[in-house]
Order: sequence, then C-alpha cells, then structure tokens
Amino acid sequence: MDYCVITDKLLEKFRAIVGEKNCLTDEENLREYSHDETEDLSFIPEVVIKPASTEEVSKILKICNKHRIAVTPSGARTGLSGGALPVRGGVNLSLSRMNRIIEIDEKNLQATVEPGVINQVFHETCKEKGLFYPPDPSSWGSSFLGGNLALNAGGPKAVKYGVTNAYVLNLEVVLADGEVIWTGANVLKNSTGYNLTQLMVGSEGTLGIITKAVFRLIPYPKSNMLMLVPFGSAQKACEAVSAIFQAGITPSGMEFMERDAIDWTLKYVQDVQLPVGPAVQAHLLIEVDGNHENELVEDCQRIAEIVEGFEAGEVLFADNPSDKEALWKLRRRVGEAVKANSIYKEEDTVVPRAHLATLLKGVKETGAKYGFQSVCYGHAGDGNLHVNIVKGDMSEKAWREELPEGIREIFELVKELGGTLSGEHGIGLVQKGYMDIVFSERELALQKAIKQVFDPKGILNPGKIFND
Amino acid sequence: MDYCVITDKLLEKFRAIVGEKNCLTDEENLREYSHDETEDLSFIPEVVIKPASTEEVSKILKICNKHRIAVTPSGARTGLSGGALPVRGGVNLSLSRMNRIIEIDEKNLQATVEPGVINQVFHETCKEKGLFYPPDPSSWGSSFLGGNLALNAGGPKAVKYGVTNAYVLNLEVVLADGEVIWTGANVLKNSTGYNLTQLMVGSEGTLGIITKAVFRLIPYPKSNMLMLVPFGSAQKACEAVSAIFQAGITPSGMEFMERDAIDWTLKYVQDVQLPVGPAVQAHLLIEVDGNHENELVEDCQRIAEIVEGFEAGEVLFADNPSDKEALWKLRRRVGEAVKANSIYKEEDTVVPRAHLATLLKGVKETGAKYGFQSVCYGHAGDGNLHVNIVKGDMSEKAWREELPEGIREIFELVKELGGTLSGEHGIGLVQKGYMDIVFSERELALQKAIKQVFDPKGILNPGKIFND
Repeated sequence: MDYCVITDKLLEKFRAIVGEKNCLTDEENLREYSHDETEDLSFIPEVVIKPASTEEVSKILKICNKHRIAVTPSGARTGLSGGALPVRGGVNLSLSRMNRIIEIDEKNLQATVEPGVINQVFHETCKEKGLFYPPDPSSWGSSFLGGNLALNAGGPKAVKYGVTNAYVLNLEVVLADGEVIWTGANVLKNSTGYNLTQLMVGSEGTLGIITKAVFRLIPYPKSNMLMLVPFGSAQKACEAVSAIFQAGITPSGMEFMERDAIDWTLKYVQDVQLPVGPAVQAHLLIEVDGNHENELVEDCQRIAEIVEGFEAGEVLFADNPSDKEALWKLRRRVGEAVKANSIYKEEDTVVPRAHLATLLKGVKETGAKYGFQSVCYGHAGDGNLHVNIVKGDMSEKAWREELPEGIREIFELVKELGGTLSGEHGIGLVQKGYMDIVFSERELALQKAIKQVFDPKGILNPGKIFND
Repeated sequence: MDYCVITDKLLEKFRAIVGEKNCLTDEENLREYSHDETEDLSFIPEVVIKPASTEEVSKILKICNKHRIAVTPSGARTGLSGGALPVRGGVNLSLSRMNRIIEIDEKNLQATVEPGVINQVFHETCKEKGLFYPPDPSSWGSSFLGGNLALNAGGPKAVKYGVTNAYVLNLEVVLADGEVIWTGANVLKNSTGYNLTQLMVGSEGTLGIITKAVFRLIPYPKSNMLMLVPFGSAQKACEAVSAIFQAGITPSGMEFMERDAIDWTLKYVQDVQLPVGPAVQAHLLIEVDGNHENELVEDCQRIAEIVEGFEAGEVLFADNPSDKEALWKLRRRVGEAVKANSIYKEEDTVVPRAHLATLLKGVKETGAKYGFQSVCYGHAGDGNLHVNIVKGDMSEKAWREELPEGIREIFELVKELGGTLSGEHGIGLVQKGYMDIVFSERELALQKAIKQVFDPKGILNPGKIFND
C-alpha cells in the first residue's frame, strides 16, 4: 500500500498544530532536510515539521497514522547510515525545537532531557555539576541525544563506560497512533516486565518517537592522562590492545588509527602538528581516567611497558589540556578529513576485540580484490573498526555494482569472527541489504513482527533497517 | 483454551528424547519441583524433564507447542516471585543438566555458558583467570545463570558494576515452536536491528528458553575494603547514601540493613559475632574496590568523614578476609534469617536512591495501618529496598485479604517516587496483580503483543508477569 501524499488540507492541519513557521515547505528547507551525513544521498520530504512538545508530536502522528503518511524523524542529521533520510517523502519530523534539559537531579544522579539537546551541551552542563554523561560520539558537538538514542551511539569513552543504552533509565515515547507511553521507571535496576526501554534504544525511530529521556549520570572522574603510541604495523597495534586489557587495565579511551587516517587528518586539520616517522603504520590513542593522579601515572607506565612488547615507537604523552585537546581533535576529525576528499562509504564493523587485526587484514585484501582504497580507524577497545571506503578514481559502475559485493565479503568475515554489521552507526538505509548476513530469516521475522506491534501501518521511518 | 494434559503416549516421546531417568513423574520429584523460594506456594507439574542440550530442548518444545502443553522453565528454584512455579501443570523444564562453562575467552574477556551453571561457580572460575563477572545475587551459591538472566538479577555489586543485563552480549534461545535463534553478536557494542538480547533478559522464560549465553567479563579488581557503619536512625543512614555518591565516590557495595534485620540474622547465623549498641537503628555495609590500595584507603577515610555528618556511630573496618567474609555472610543471609521464623512475603521495591528514606517511612506507616511487621534491607546504592513482611501472628484472613491492599499502597508510593515494582526479583506470579500500578493499559498491551509474537500459543511459563 502506498503512502498518502500530503494535501494542502493536511498541511493546514499541521500548521494549526505547530504554527506556520514550523511547518516548512519551501524548496531550500526541503533540500536541506533531504540529506544527513550519509554518502551523497538525498531524498526530498514533502514537509518539514518542527513540533515543540510531546503533545504536538502526538497530534501530528495521529493525523499521519490516520492517513498513512510516512514520518521520518530527524535530529541533527549527522547520521552515517541514512536513518534520517525521508526515503518515502512525507513528513520529516525534526525534533530540533525540543531541546530542553528539563532537570538535572543531583541527589539521584539523574537527568531528564528532550531529544533535541546537543550531546556536548548536555555533557558540559552535567560536568559543571561534577556529573558525567560518558557517551561521546565524534559528532558530539552537533548530534542530538535523541539521535544518539535512536542509534545507540557510542564514542571513545564506551570502552570503559559503555554506550548510550548503559545510561538510559526511562523513555517517554509517542507511538505511531499518537498515544504517549513511558517505557520503564527512573531506577537503576528494573525487573518489571519486558524491557521496552532497551527495545526502543537503537530502533532508529521505527517503533516510536522518543520525546523525553531519563539518563543516569556518574561522578565526573577528576583526572585523565592521554598517550599516543606509534606502531610499525597495524597488526602489532591491534595485538597490543588485547594485551592491555589482559593486564587488568581498562582505559577510558583506546582508539586505533591507521597511518593514512593520521596523514589525511593532519592535512585537513591544519592547526595540529604531529611528527610521524616514515616507519609508523598505525597509532593507538590511549586515555586512562580516575580520581587519583598517582594511579593513572602507574597505569600509563604499565601500558608503556606492555606496548614495548609490540614494537611500539616512542610514546607521546599529552600532559596539558591543550595537547590533549589537540590529540582528541585529530581523532574526532578523521572521518571528516577522509570524507572531504572524495565520495565515500563508511562501514561500522564490530568484532570481538582480539580479532581486530584479522578484520583489518581482511578489509585490505578485499580492497585489493575489488580495487578500492580504505582508511580504517575506530574504537579498538570495543573491536569497532570504521572502514571508510573512498571512491577516488573508481568508475561509477564499479562503485555502484561491484563495491557492494566487496562490502558483503567484509561483513561475511565480520560475522565469521563473531561480530556484526554496526557497532554504533545503525543500519538505516545503507546497511539494510546486509542484514541477512547476520540474522536468520526467523530472527528477522521476529524483529519485523515487533515493528508490526508498534506501528501496524508502517508510517514510522519507512524503508529503514529491513528490506521491504 | 485449556492446556493439554500429558498422556502416556506423550511421556513416551519425552523419554525418547532425554532418557528415562531425566523424565520424572514420581511423587517425590513432582513435589520437589512444585515450589521455589516464594512464600509457601506449591504447584505440582505433570512431569519434570531435564534436557542435556539445545537440541533436546528444541525437540521437547516442538511437542509441547504442537499439543499446547504448558512449559515452566526452572533453574535452581531460588526465585522469590514464583517465576518457576508450574501454575498450569504441564512440563517443568529443568535446565540443571545444561551446566557447562563452554569457554572462557581470555583474549576477548568473554565467556560462553549454559544456563545451568551456578553463579558462584562461574564467578570463581573467572576469578582464577583474573576475570570478573560482577552480578552476585544473595543466592549466588546456588542460583543458576539462566535464572539470573530470566530475572535480570542484581546483587550488592550492581551499584558500581550494573546488573546481569550489563554483561550479556548474546543469547542462544529456543523459541516456543522449537526453532533456535541467536539474539545478537559477541560484541561490546551493537546497533544492528532491535535489541532482542535485552528483550529476552528479564522476560522470565515467557519468550523463549535461554540455552546459551555469551557474557563480557572485566579485569578482577585487585583489592577491596569493607566497612560497617551504624546509624541512630534509618532516615540518616539513607541520607548518607546519597551524600557519598554526591561526593564523587562510587562504592562497589552499599547495603542497608535496618536494626531488626541485623538482630534476626545474628540470632540465625550463630558463628558471626557483632556488638550492636542499643541506640543503633540501621547499618550501612560499604565496600570500595580497585587496583590501588592507597586509593581505597583515601576513599574509606572520605566516606568515614561523610557519614559523621549523618550521626553515624563508630565505623567498623573489616581489614582481613575472614572479617570481610563474616560481614558479607551476615548481609547475604538476612533474607533466610527473616524467613526462617515465619511465613513471609518479600517485596522488591526500587526507587531513585535519594527517596529511600521516604519509601522506608511509608512502608512502616503502611505496616502500622494494616497491622503487619516488616524487616527492610537491601541495595541502598541502587534504591532497591527488600521489604520482608512477616506473617507472625496476623490472622489468616488479614494475611490473605487485607495485606494485598497494604502492599498495593506501598507500590503506589513507589510509583509516586519514580520507582517500580521489582529491582531484581521479577514479577512472576506474586507481583503480577500490581502491574497496573506502574504500567498503563497500552504499555501492558504492547508487552502482551510481544509475548504473542514469540509464543502465539502461550505455552511458555503461562500465568506469569501479566494477569490473564
């Protein structure tokens, strides 16, 4: 069944709910909301609607459900899997106006927020009160908490502190038919019925629209130390990662960057200088944090001893805030730097961490076979390797027709290693064709049946996660 | 529709799958498997079947689904909400023979286990390799990991390390019709489709039978310190809990015991001595852990300073393994001690931690109103208060008819405080009548519809979580 085209009469109804200026149909805005950060993809919505409250979201969904209008929720549109692309036209429901931090409850170490709050703004507001919200995707300066929830976003700190779902206690959700539910309770442990909270996290806006979230917070660690370790081979760098954990140390950051990633980024981020010797093939950026400086020094010394066993070069310690900031900037902007040069595809592979080296080798071999260049980096401590495939001078035909076969081979290797398609970017539009690699027909059927329970008319973010 | 009564012909089929001696129909065994640790409840199954493999579970379920036979999975039957009671007769499916630790993967800090492994056995096997599996319910000496998963069990360590669901990466599950699925992948972060893993955890065997689990592990902390702090009022003890977290310290244990709990337990556990002054009304048992002894000493000193502000009495430090063990024994056996004296009901209330004192006050007021005595203790750091209601000399009529109204009032207060029915014991049979307090009709309908997706004939653990 097709989706309803939005008539002038329906537009009038939407305008009555959110006001004229929050119901956008001009070409410039439609074009703006037609894309996120995924490749060069663009799908024009019929209207962009910006509600300001749960009640407004509810009223909009009631209309959309009644008429079967496609609704694609969008946040900051920094996503890399096409989750916010309105592939079936209809409504692009922007949560950008619902951006209040409603409460930071310092006695309970909890916060209640709306979905349009920017991750970094939330992080810093908590930090001022001595509280820590750890999930920090590279996009944290712009991405919304709502989008982070939709994709179960991670970031460098996940290796010690876990990803978004480790901090969510309770969600207010508007269902497809406009009814409002809460998924759980504001408690640290909960064995009361099925875990609707965790079902909603990572469901990419296909099961409901998150309109409020209650997060738990933890005390902000008082100090941290950062070190950059060069390696003569990517293989050795990956092996060192497992060895550090096996030694009983849990770093608060454990980032891998292959040589190309550093080179591209140094060219792109002009204000950071870093001497990289010709023999260096990979770097690990390692952070430890805690409340006791002495302990961190000991951990760093121990890490330095361990990496020596893996033929590491000279370790660079960042011992002041500006040096630390410069190194993190380098890491956070790798993605951007790689993408500034060419059309690209980004895969978000994840495997058990000890298999990282095998995965990397497989990616390079597949690249050689299919003729593509890849720049790899990511959260080594989590086994989460971002594989950026750059189009460069590949032919249009190879890019469109052959490359997907190469990507399939990479994901088949990932599956074989005990891993899966996405660690933190989601499936969205661009990875859904590979879901059959990691899920059996029955496993997919169960997920689709859950979708049917929440959204029987299929209006919420259609065309995502599952093949039609 | 009624459940099928198990005929001799069907028994023959079950015997052919698991062997004669693993298909029990004698009265002694049926009686044994008719109860768990919940009150004095008993429901006799028609047969106890003990499969040894996923394949056998699958074959059994195929038969049960075809004929619509009720299947109640059971572990060590240490549960406190009646989850393992075969209330509709049929099959009691005991997972006790599936008790292998299949693999401890030291490179990836992961383990694969069967559901019948005893929690403490798993904990200690990991510890020998320097690895830490933190969830440690009081029943850890006997309860199974499968049961821990079914109820999302917690324990004292949850306050720092999280409950069972924070350690599950992937589950092998036999569905109601016998098909076998895996819910996820063996990775630390996963944004690939809906989170079937977390849906299964805490679903109390109503959505499928867990036959394998992959857990993540962490490095075992090298040291810990334990202190017992007496308070002149339970209120002050509860207030101190929040203050400690607000000071930036995250203890690895933060247990609350009111005066009665200690007294009952000292009487019950004869081999532990503890002088408790007459003015003491409550205790906090506080543990800190980490890799650096000096840091722990500092934390303990800081905690001692903080509790002073809440009129604490003299702090007792347990500084050797046997003293530590004695204090933990006291805490772990409170439940048993209280229950040894009388018929009881145990409520597993959970609220945001700063509201613990309000909850405790409410419990006592409700007790006074309805004429029942309660002994309260639990995981104060998580806001998880176990309310043990002892029958004592209450009349049978008051126990059966009036007490449920009192419990309802307690749960209504819990809800008002932002909390919910169960923190770690589950809903099972005995709390399902209160689900309407914390969930709207729609929220319950969504959960029941999910049940319908996984188990359309309703054979798996019927009569649990939801009112019929």
